[in-house]
Formats: sequence, C-alpha cells, structure tokens
Amino acid sequence: MSALPTPPYYAVIFTSQRTPADDDGYGDAADRMVALAFEQPGYLGVESARGEDGLGITVSYWRSPEDIAAWRRNAEHKIARDSGRSDWYQHYTLRVAKVERAYAWAREDGLKDPQA
Amino acid sequence: MSALPTPPYYAVIFTSQRTPADDDGYGDAADRMVALAFEQPGYLGVESARGEDGLGITVSYWRSPEDIAAWRRNAEHKIARDSGRSDWYQHYTLRVAKVERAYAWAREDGLKDPQA
Repeated sequence: MSALPTPPYYAVIFTSQRTPADDDGYGDAADRMVALAFEQPGYLGVESARGEDGLGITVSYWRSPEDIAAWRRNAEHKIARDSGRSDWYQHYTLRVAKVERAYAWAREDGLKDPQA
Repeated sequence: MSALPTPPYYAVIFTSQRTPADDDGYGDAADRMVALAFEQPGYLGVESARGEDGLGITVSYWRSPEDIAAWRRNAEHKIARDSGRSDWYQHYTLRVAKVERAYAWAREDGLKDPQA
C-alpha cells in the first residue's frame, strides 16, 4: 500500500496454494475482492504476491478487528471464499495480527518511520 | 510453514520491490538467510512469494519480540540487509505484528483451528 499508517492497526495475512486447475474466474474474483475491500470501513490497503509455484501471500490492513469481522460478513466476500474452497485453493492459512511497529525504506527517500 | 503454532506469536511482514538489476547474488543470499533464520532461537517458520512484477512478500514467524530483536542483531543478517539497500531493493516495508488468531484449511483435511 502507498501510505504508511502509524501503528497500531491490523493485518490479515492470507497464505494460499492455488490448485493446478485453470483460472476458473479466479483472477476476476481476486480483482473484485480488492475493489470491494477498498469500499469497506477501516480498510487501509493490501499487498499481494504469487510466485510461479502457485504459492501466494496477500496481506490486507485494517483499522480494527471489528472492521475485519465486518468484511468477513460481507455477502459477496463469503461467496468468493466458498469458491476458494471448492475450486481455487489446495490449502490456505489465515492469520490476524496486530501491527505494533512499521517502517519503510525507499532508494530515493531513505528510511521513513512514523513512530520515530 | 508446515506447523500451525497456537497464538500468540509474532510475524515480521517484509514487503519489497526488487530492482530491475541482475540477480547480483540475491537468490543465494535469500536462501542463506532462510537457513540462518532456521537456526535462531524462537524461529517458527517463513513463507515467501514474489510475482513477475518483482513485488515480494516474506513473512517470518517468531515466538517473541526479543527473538526478532536478536535476529536483527545477527552479523550475517546485517550484511545481507546492507546489500539489500545498496543493490537489491527499490523499496521495502517492514512490519512487526502480534498474531492473535490463526487457522488453516486444506482440501484433504478441512479446517484446522488450534484455538478452537
């Protein structure tokens, strides 16, 4: 994500292994979930990477556990999760974690530490 | 990581954008850091993914903030971080977060929740 909010805030760490099956709408659904999350209260951003081996990590950031719980109850998000289990994922792990420290470094800007 | 420890424990979320430069020893150093982390007290595991766009996410898991601080002081790890800033990364963000909830799902095993 572009901004660097000052902790504390929350991270949802979603690690997943894709099935070897064809895309089956996965890419569209993933894009849609990012767009939908963007509209939710307390949403702070998302980062996502998937390697050629099919292992992916998506980390979304939220203001509070209540915001995460509300996103979890979103009806369209529920449907996407069902498709994940029926079609797209071999296995996944989900962790909810409270971000206590955060800093960023960039070649052009050096270190940025909102808590310093 | 293969095991699913019972929370609480800690996650270091490292998001990075690689420089377009050649590998310059990056792959070897990354492998070496994983092997070295494995030997550290309190190390619980690591997950890593990098997409074709060069954006990567590595999440390492630790028993306590003290274990993370000790890993940060490791001399060989310090040298690798210096090379990261001088050669390998365009920018990166590092977050330390306390994992409060964790569960896993697998196609063959269903849901696994160590806190349930």
